Amino acid sequence: MAAMIGGGVDGPSLRILPLGGVGEIGKNMTLFEYGDDIVVIDCGLKFPDEEMFGIDLVVPDVTYLRQRRDKVRAFLITHAHEDHVGGLPYVLPEFPGVPVYASTLARGLLGVKIKEHKLYDNPLHALEPGQEVRIGAMSATGFRIGHSIPDAMGIALRTPLGTIVHTGDFKFDHTPVDAKPSDFHVLARLGEEGVLCLLSDSTRAENPGYTPSERTVGEAFREIMEGLEGRVIVATFASNIARVQQVFDAASTFGRKVAVIGRSMEQNTRIASELGYLHYPADGVVSKDRIRDVPDGQLCIATTGAQGEPMAGLARMANRDHRWVEVGPGDTVIVSASPIPGNEEYVARTIDNLFKNGANVYYHTIKRAHVSGHGSQEELKLMLNLTRPKYFIPVHGEFRMLVQHGRVAAETGVEPENIFIIENGQPIDFQSNGTARRGPSVEAGYVLVDGLSVGEVGDVVLRDRRALASDGMFLVVVTVDRQTGNMVRRPEIVTHGFVTDASDPLIAAAADRIARSIENPGDHISEIGLLKTQIKEGLSQYLYEQTRRRPMVFPVIVEV
Amino acid sequence: MAAMIGGGVDGPSLRILPLGGVGEIGKNMTLFEYGDDIVVIDCGLKFPDEEMFGIDLVVPDVTYLRQRRDKVRAFLITHAHEDHVGGLPYVLPEFPGVPVYASTLARGLLGVKIKEHKLYDNPLHALEPGQEVRIGAMSATGFRIGHSIPDAMGIALRTPLGTIVHTGDFKFDHTPVDAKPSDFHVLARLGEEGVLCLLSDSTRAENPGYTPSERTVGEAFREIMEGLEGRVIVATFASNIARVQQVFDAASTFGRKVAVIGRSMEQNTRIASELGYLHYPADGVVSKDRIRDVPDGQLCIATTGAQGEPMAGLARMANRDHRWVEVGPGDTVIVSASPIPGNEEYVARTIDNLFKNGANVYYHTIKRAHVSGHGSQEELKLMLNLTRPKYFIPVHGEFRMLVQHGRVAAETGVEPENIFIIENGQPIDFQSNGTARRGPSVEAGYVLVDGLSVGEVGDVVLRDRRALASDGMFLVVVTVDRQTGNMVRRPEIVTHGFVTDASDPLIAAAADRIARSIENPGDHISEIGLLKTQIKEGLSQYLYEQTRRRPMVFPVIVEV
Repeated sequence: MAAMIGGGVDGPSLRILPLGGVGEIGKNMTLFEYGDDIVVIDCGLKFPDEEMFGIDLVVPDVTYLRQRRDKVRAFLITHAHEDHVGGLPYVLPEFPGVPVYASTLARGLLGVKIKEHKLYDNPLHALEPGQEVRIGAMSATGFRIGHSIPDAMGIALRTPLGTIVHTGDFKFDHTPVDAKPSDFHVLARLGEEGVLCLLSDSTRAENPGYTPSERTVGEAFREIMEGLEGRVIVATFASNIARVQQVFDAASTFGRKVAVIGRSMEQNTRIASELGYLHYPADGVVSKDRIRDVPDGQLCIATTGAQGEPMAGLARMANRDHRWVEVGPGDTVIVSASPIPGNEEYVARTIDNLFKNGANVYYHTIKRAHVSGHGSQEELKLMLNLTRPKYFIPVHGEFRMLVQHGRVAAETGVEPENIFIIENGQPIDFQSNGTARRGPSVEAGYVLVDGLSVGEVGDVVLRDRRALASDGMFLVVVTVDRQTGNMVRRPEIVTHGFVTDASDPLIAAAADRIARSIENPGDHISEIGLLKTQIKEGLSQYLYEQTRRRPMVFPVIVEV
Repeated sequence: MAAMIGGGVDGPSLRILPLGGVGEIGKNMTLFEYGDDIVVIDCGLKFPDEEMFGIDLVVPDVTYLRQRRDKVRAFLITHAHEDHVGGLPYVLPEFPGVPVYASTLARGLLGVKIKEHKLYDNPLHALEPGQEVRIGAMSATGFRIGHSIPDAMGIALRTPLGTIVHTGDFKFDHTPVDAKPSDFHVLARLGEEGVLCLLSDSTRAENPGYTPSERTVGEAFREIMEGLEGRVIVATFASNIARVQQVFDAASTFGRKVAVIGRSMEQNTRIASELGYLHYPADGVVSKDRIRDVPDGQLCIATTGAQGEPMAGLARMANRDHRWVEVGPGDTVIVSASPIPGNEEYVARTIDNLFKNGANVYYHTIKRAHVSGHGSQEELKLMLNLTRPKYFIPVHGEFRMLVQHGRVAAETGVEPENIFIIENGQPIDFQSNGTARRGPSVEAGYVLVDGLSVGEVGDVVLRDRRALASDGMFLVVVTVDRQTGNMVRRPEIVTHGFVTDASDPLIAAAADRIARSIENPGDHISEIGLLKTQIKEGLSQYLYEQTRRRPMVFPVIVEV
């Protein structure tokens, strides 16, 4: 068991500790620890950097939580995007019995994950906007905020030392598609009562002004669709139910039926529709296997792949290897998303392929058929002025975004010394006398998920993959006589990712060189390890001199 | 020898053939073939995609030129950026004696390349803006255009079938830093005389409006520097001499000395200064080894690495492993560039590191201290309206940019059927009767440069590197008795990029499995190839079942 952290003059202290999402985009996870109680907000994943070769997912390192397993009381979910819930399947099994709280739509979407990963040991409870739940010495209230998914919430956490407000991902959309604006009054009341600390979304802290309303996207859809005679294909995020709603609305304006195509989008729209978060007329929809019966001018297809992901709907339609839809002349494609950093090249390739097939394409640089789900600077200032926090911790963003958000907070009047620009694993400890300070950092890196393994692939494996990716490999099998140390036959060489042709003279030259070095009389090595090192170093140097490349060299010695 | 292409009713046809830069950014190269004469404009390189593991550079495939070696008369260079000249060291050696034409600064910068690669077999001749040279049946005139390097040119190529205008990279900057605006009058005269075909830069064809003048960057520098007490560090492209000039000018306004740090930038500024393209007072400069003698408030450092390149000046200063400069609190850094697609993550990481070290950073999202060297839509329209071409080929851009540029051309009045949106290797043939049509495509891919090898690394090698990068490798050495086919000892397994720990039970289990499959009586295989296939398939399947990963499996059979 861990010792009690800190401890003020007259009671335990309150620790806020981000384990993800701070100094990075993705795998959001923050924990709140007071005395014997720990509450966790969100547990997301992120997709790997391009240097994490072969890795499928990255989830937070929960060593700190594992060491305090008995104190963990609840996981609170702000909304069911993967960067907020995707880590649950890898983390929950370590905390059996600990309940998960989420709003209706989030619970619906989590249901799929629960079934797929058999997460039946953690009860799933309701926490709707406006609802309050008691959790140990703390209590949590959900409040509605705008985001690119319905029913997204922030959390007000009342603790014995004061109230903490965690915004989740948010924007202030005054005209949201579901006509349910953010809970301005709840935030104002919290501000009046006094907020000890605000943790706020920094994703767009670099952007001045306001993020436009989601409703403007529907207007753009209508402008594009007006008068078109061919098919319309709209690609967006599978989880953006509001966006799919707008596709239905715009299509219905022009008498088009909508076909939803793409496993995750079909699943999400089905769940959202069942739970009452998506509305369309019964004859406004057509199943994907019937789209050939609908005239082009009366068809609208909603699909995934707006980030150019090679296996998703849009990229396959663009490559003409999609089962139901091949994009061609006469089609109009709307890419309703901005490329997420790292996806730019995928998106560019997909758009180029669509054009090459003769389609007309509307995309982020050409026509604004997308708005962000995150608030810009003026919205961040409004959040700060409504809640009027004593302390401020910018979260959800890369380091430079946190810095900019910190500046925004200072402009609205938060004392600069009360603004903590921190990274994952850096705790902030609040004392009962109202002061706060940085605690010593805790372990909070990342855990790599590769195929079925979680955390098994570490830095050594990644380093090897990087080396293999850069210059390939060069394998040498040397067979030596156990007694004499003499080489019994010519070294065998296998190479991949280095030269195309096994008959390349370099291969023969390398074999000769190894053979000569071993045959050199008086240099017989009976010690296998030393022989391996000699071959490896000699060959690496030779190959580098000849090619300026450094393949991984693997010597294998077989004794006979 | 190749047969004569096309051939109209009364004379040879004119072929325009891009070998690079069309449907992609980078490695620009276009050839113009009339009868027995071929003129080449530019010969660039591009940096590899992220999927081209371990590749250093990509240069154009010049198979077509090689097959017509005797016809190649000249390489004309529009300006000395790497995407226009970087392919020369790999291409020129195949064309000894063929002259290279370039303007003064370009010749100065090419001198370094010539020395480094010993390209002494190709004479380097002057082609200044306004100058005309006769090349076989054609003649070329350079005209001045604005770009992010002084003395950049477009080329007007007079052929027996009409005049071709190739813009090179351009913008129309009415207030350039060197006070030498584009040759508007030359372009207007060409338009009056009649232009058969315009090839024009499409890099910013997606952007409406005008690209701001380079001069606005100098104003931003002054706004940022005003009143600062610490050091100022400006990172930009080493070749952007105009930008470096503006650093000198702004620094001098506030009494700061400039230190230029970074091999390529030091080299370029030295050459530009010697040739009269860079001006500063003798006491306005300080050498890098003396910067510690200059008070912080009187120092300005110009360096490379604005694209976050890990080995360049800025990234090393941010990582505090630079020999002369470590960035820290009090420093102000200006990243005077926008991230080139593909570099976004490098740039983000560098900016984050600078902030973590306590510096204040101005970068593309926060403060416009950079403008593009390429014209936006209104400038493209002006180029079209000045030259009034009959035919139009958008060049220098990804496919979608070419499509947008084609739309812009149609808006200005070029007949839609006279606009050719093409890719590398797609020739357009002009007949003597004034018509033009697409010819059959020619070989025009890319050649990969990896270390010392040019073109040796092909798709097979890249595919292997990708596979190795994704899941690593699994090497099995099986020693069998040549007579009986029996396994002599337990299989030896070497794995990299797969599991961290050689003692992983999976390794032992795999070895057992191989051993059992071979020991199975009645299943002795004397045919090595078949045994290899069996081991490879069986083991791949087993590893996939156990881990959902697919390492490359290499069986090695040693017979004793």
